[in-house]
Amino acid sequence: MRRAPSNVLIESPIPFLAYRGRFQQVVLHQGRIERFFLDSLKKHSNPHIKVERGVIPDLLELDTSSAEDLEAYPIKLRLRHLSDEEATPAQGNSHSVGEDAPEDGLFRSNLAADDTDDLIRKARDGKQSETEIVRAKYVIGCDGAHSWTRRQLGFKMEGEQTDFIWGVLDIQPITDFPDIRMRCAIHSANSGSVMVIPRENKLVRLYIQLTEVNKDGGAVDRSTITPQMILKAAQKIMSPYTITYKYCDWWTAYQIGQRVGNNFSASERVFLAGDAVHTHSPKAGQGMNVSMQDCFNLGWKIAGVVNGTLQRSVLKTYQSERRRIAQDLIEFDHRFSRLFSGRPAKDAADEAGISMSEFKDAFVKGNMFASGIAVDYGSSSIVAKPGNSSDQGDGTDVASCRVVGKQELATEIKLGMRMPSFKVLNQSDARPWHFQERLNSDGRFRIVVFAGDVTDSAQMDRVQQLGKSLAAPDGVVRRFTPKDKKIDSVIDILTIHCGERQKVEMLDFPEIFHPFDEKSGWDYSKVFADAVSYHEADADGKAYEKYGVNRRRGCIVVTRPDQYVGYVGELEDVGEVGKYFDGVLMPVR
Amino acid sequence: MRRAPSNVLIESPIPFLAYRGRFQQVVLHQGRIERFFLDSLKKHSNPHIKVERGVIPDLLELDTSSAEDLEAYPIKLRLRHLSDEEATPAQGNSHSVGEDAPEDGLFRSNLAADDTDDLIRKARDGKQSETEIVRAKYVIGCDGAHSWTRRQLGFKMEGEQTDFIWGVLDIQPITDFPDIRMRCAIHSANSGSVMVIPRENKLVRLYIQLTEVNKDGGAVDRSTITPQMILKAAQKIMSPYTITYKYCDWWTAYQIGQRVGNNFSASERVFLAGDAVHTHSPKAGQGMNVSMQDCFNLGWKIAGVVNGTLQRSVLKTYQSERRRIAQDLIEFDHRFSRLFSGRPAKDAADEAGISMSEFKDAFVKGNMFASGIAVDYGSSSIVAKPGNSSDQGDGTDVASCRVVGKQELATEIKLGMRMPSFKVLNQSDARPWHFQERLNSDGRFRIVVFAGDVTDSAQMDRVQQLGKSLAAPDGVVRRFTPKDKKIDSVIDILTIHCGERQKVEMLDFPEIFHPFDEKSGWDYSKVFADAVSYHEADADGKAYEKYGVNRRRGCIVVTRPDQYVGYVGELEDVGEVGKYFDGVLMPVR
Ligand SMILES: Cc1cc2nc3c(=O)[nH]c(=O)nc-3n(C[C@H](O)[C@H](O)[C@H](O)COP(=O)(O)OP(=O)(O)OC[C@H]3O[C@@H](n4cnc5c(N)ncnc54)[C@H](O)[C@@H]3O)c2cc1C
Ligand SMILES: Cc1cc2nc3c(=O)[nH]c(=O)nc-3n(C[C@H](O)[C@H](O)[C@H](O)COP(=O)(O)OP(=O)(O)OC[C@H]3O[C@@H](n4cnc5c(N)ncnc54)[C@H](O)[C@@H]3O)c2cc1C
Repeated sequence: MRRAPSNVLIESPIPFLAYRGRFQQVVLHQGRIERFFLDSLKKHSNPHIKVERGVIPDLLELDTSSAEDLEAYPIKLRLRHLSDEEATPAQGNSHSVGEDAPEDGLFRSNLAADDTDDLIRKARDGKQSETEIVRAKYVIGCDGAHSWTRRQLGFKMEGEQTDFIWGVLDIQPITDFPDIRMRCAIHSANSGSVMVIPRENKLVRLYIQLTEVNKDGGAVDRSTITPQMILKAAQKIMSPYTITYKYCDWWTAYQIGQRVGNNFSASERVFLAGDAVHTHSPKAGQGMNVSMQDCFNLGWKIAGVVNGTLQRSVLKTYQSERRRIAQDLIEFDHRFSRLFSGRPAKDAADEAGISMSEFKDAFVKGNMFASGIAVDYGSSSIVAKPGNSSDQGDGTDVASCRVVGKQELATEIKLGMRMPSFKVLNQSDARPWHFQERLNSDGRFRIVVFAGDVTDSAQMDRVQQLGKSLAAPDGVVRRFTPKDKKIDSVIDILTIHCGERQKVEMLDFPEIFHPFDEKSGWDYSKVFADAVSYHEADADGKAYEKYGVNRRRGCIVVTRPDQYVGYVGELEDVGEVGKYFDGVLMPVR
Repeated sequence: MRRAPSNVLIESPIPFLAYRGRFQQVVLHQGRIERFFLDSLKKHSNPHIKVERGVIPDLLELDTSSAEDLEAYPIKLRLRHLSDEEATPAQGNSHSVGEDAPEDGLFRSNLAADDTDDLIRKARDGKQSETEIVRAKYVIGCDGAHSWTRRQLGFKMEGEQTDFIWGVLDIQPITDFPDIRMRCAIHSANSGSVMVIPRENKLVRLYIQLTEVNKDGGAVDRSTITPQMILKAAQKIMSPYTITYKYCDWWTAYQIGQRVGNNFSASERVFLAGDAVHTHSPKAGQGMNVSMQDCFNLGWKIAGVVNGTLQRSVLKTYQSERRRIAQDLIEFDHRFSRLFSGRPAKDAADEAGISMSEFKDAFVKGNMFASGIAVDYGSSSIVAKPGNSSDQGDGTDVASCRVVGKQELATEIKLGMRMPSFKVLNQSDARPWHFQERLNSDGRFRIVVFAGDVTDSAQMDRVQQLGKSLAAPDGVVRRFTPKDKKIDSVIDILTIHCGERQKVEMLDFPEIFHPFDEKSGWDYSKVFADAVSYHEADADGKAYEKYGVNRRRGCIVVTRPDQYVGYVGELEDVGEVGKYFDGVLMPVR
């Protein structure tokens, strides 16, 4: 907090204490995200996969009787290819006031009505659109808050629209407010609050609570909402500081809904993700993050089933994991919204007011949500946690795991949470890596061997024994890996030891830890040492400590393709690992 | 050093103790560098600037009488545009032996003869090539070791061709040598040495001294040099470890020349850079680095003169600075080559042998050269160092600076060396920056104000006074900045203070430290605090300490457009700064 006038509370950025991921928090413009996806699609996919635009479905049928048949295509979709003219939406009235303000800020805001049904009707009546029937194994509806897919399935959103209305301005501010380049919240005594999110190119995004409109709880009159009016609200909240702008890049206004879908899939064949199944206030910048995480959770599961690697039962965990997260998020959002809209406490004795420390706590929690670090999936076939799987999820009945992990062996690698990332050195070239960089989301499960201090010969014997079990012809790796595939194509083994790196050689480890290739030699990319780097201060030889793993004895950790922790056990627990995979992977025939 | 057999010495990677730059050392394939240049050219340049290929000059004339006339175009060049056929070189015999080995590894090695004159002759005789006359203000000849430009100017290379011949193999090695993924050198008792440079995609580059060929000091028989023969030499040196390969990406062999040009420019109009004026052994990976640094030194100087910002006399410093570096490098290279080719010492008593510690020292020094961090330019008009400028350069008579910097005020910001980089926080958004990121090579000089602890009001008074002097109508900034240009377009002012960041506001500083723009408001990108970051361990609030600047009193530092330090003084030394620029910049009329 800074030397601010007494009627304004400014919440400065919050140290990211609990942060254990690879990336630092940054604010990225949503508009750039689509570009990342398109580029990545181009780079990693079969070249004929491309995004088609101007296509809408107008019929969806699911044959539930063949839902469990791996060979079946139980979904029928009719797609309509719109002509350019049909696909170009009519924008609403212009509400521009500032000289440089863009045209209609409320276009496709949730204050405007949904136009999907209109589009379909027009396209059906018109002569121009072509139709196409697609038979699919799986369909994912990420068609936003008004989801047509959701409506076809007859699923409901539970929760309610609130009467909070927020305006958004993307401007280059001209102001004497000192923290304008900080992500912060300004909480006025009587005029509500402003959230400040600095962006690239001198832009700042302001979220401003509009107390002016809709005081009576009635319907909102869109025509009263203009950038000028939103600016005025901001000025009132931020006074005695002054703020104005010459350049406005974008603006909008919307009403907050806090709702979760009652169902995230139909027979684990048609799935819903993103705003189609949860909406909440955008204050903590969660919407897009949580939506992408939905798909990150779902993607590898569907791909694995389609490839024949994963059992179909794993698909049920999408709903148990993600619907629960949405429920938690909305509960958090309720609390957070109240903090924002409420009146700040005048002093410690003012109990009706909102205290700064409560606010700060909520902010930290929000950051944890946004980074995905707080996500803690419940017990299921893919998370070997004790306890009841339907209690720990959203209530869906998902199979439990056949084994229970030994959390005490890796106290900071929590079952059900993302594997934290610390820096370790490649054994062979001493280059530091954030360990997460080795946990590529390429559909593979991983066994991470914390080999302990392998300069101790008794410990090295345990490691050799582990290598032997893992490599056995009927062992856990070969049982699930097709003969014609590389040995690490389904389950990848990575090793981190904590013996003195200079006293250890990669070839000391069992061959399955660094498979040999006829043409290119040993694989040098899989064995790491927890050691101090010459170059990088954060590669400090304390990864074992930070992971909460005993340096002498080590442990093994199974990670899912999305880097969440499935199982933790002793080096001798290869049989348990086998049982874990028996409930998850398809055995090779 | 590792547990290696007794007849092999392995030099493991050297900690980069003295490193104070922004980047860590990495090995990049030279082939990728051209792509970076082309991409950057496209991004930053006028779209009609493009690289023309298949064009050779066959006439170069310089009118020395108009060399000092700023408006003149004293150079005449005739260019010949070759046809595709003429431009495609005939490759020599194939020496390929390994199954995957590429064709002719010796093509354009220095063991092959230069073909420039042939090309010119053929093009003149042929009917196909078109010619073009270009009149130029400046020409830079970076046409390699056989430089045609150098020959036209009649300049000489001084030094000699050595009889060391080296082979190079880029292979995916199959080996039990444990340090194959380390940059290291292997020094055998009697069979010479191998340098190991790990690369991307499992490739490793080996530099191997070929004792087999040319034993008698006679001319080299190219036909005896094959990849297989180079591999055999490596096997002998590395024994008892084994090494072989299935995949060879590239190979070559060359003879080491250690020579420096006697002249780097003709009348500061036609310049030579890169291999055209210095060649040395490639063992320390210097050639390309030093060549690029030549051009980095020269580029801003020519651009500044052409733009009318810089005085022409500055151009003389190209030779005094870069020829001296080349001389130093070759002296170092002599020593290094001897270390490589010599016999390792058997023990501490073996004085004729080469000791491990001597070797290690040389390796460290080599790294310093490669990173450019060791470069220390002598006194000149652009380096306000005490002492004689011709002694400190290559002997060229360059003007001395009109002032002498006060090195003691910033003991680690050495006059004549690159400004070291440490992390500081942006005052306004607390984001950590490697300070060098703010020293863009955009042709601008910078005044870096170490404002000290500005929460102390006496110190803040000094800073205000400095701001006033800098902003004065006849002050140092306006004297050299055209009226129609932004105030920071010739001299950019950056500030680092060390007061508690939360107690300071950017607007507390003089306006010239954060200029105001009508449309977009204050410039938030110029004032920094030496403070601890929430996020990054190396932004530790110790930049003043590391820069060797007194936290209470601060200082000012002038950096050149290439980030080398020109002047250091007190906050009150604005007059001295003015004198510095009087000898460097062109005053506005
Ligand atoms: C003002 C505002 C600011 C926000 N700021 C942030 C933020 O800072 N950070 C953050 O993480 N989130 C933010 N959000 C939330 C975020 O935008 C959403 O959560 C996110 O876009 C949801 O992604 P989605 O793919 O599920 O849905 P959408 O982004 O709504 O995408 C749905 C897509 O489906 C298409 N579609 C819809 N119906 C059909 C149909 N019948 N046929 C074919 N296509 C159809 C639509 O055209 C659209 O392209 C913000 C939201 C708002 C309103
Ligand atoms: C085997 C080997 C390995 C090396 N490894 C490294 C390394 O790891 N790191 C490193 O930093 N350096 C290395 N070097 C050195 C490095 O390659 C050179 O120092 C560097 O390429 C010099 O750059 P240059 O632009 O001055 O000359 P060059 O790269 O030789 O470029 C000269 C250019 O001019 C063109 N040209 C020549 N004559 C004419 C003419 N008359 N008309 C038109 N065009 C002409 C040529 O075609 C060529 O494109 C290595 C060198 C060798 C031989």
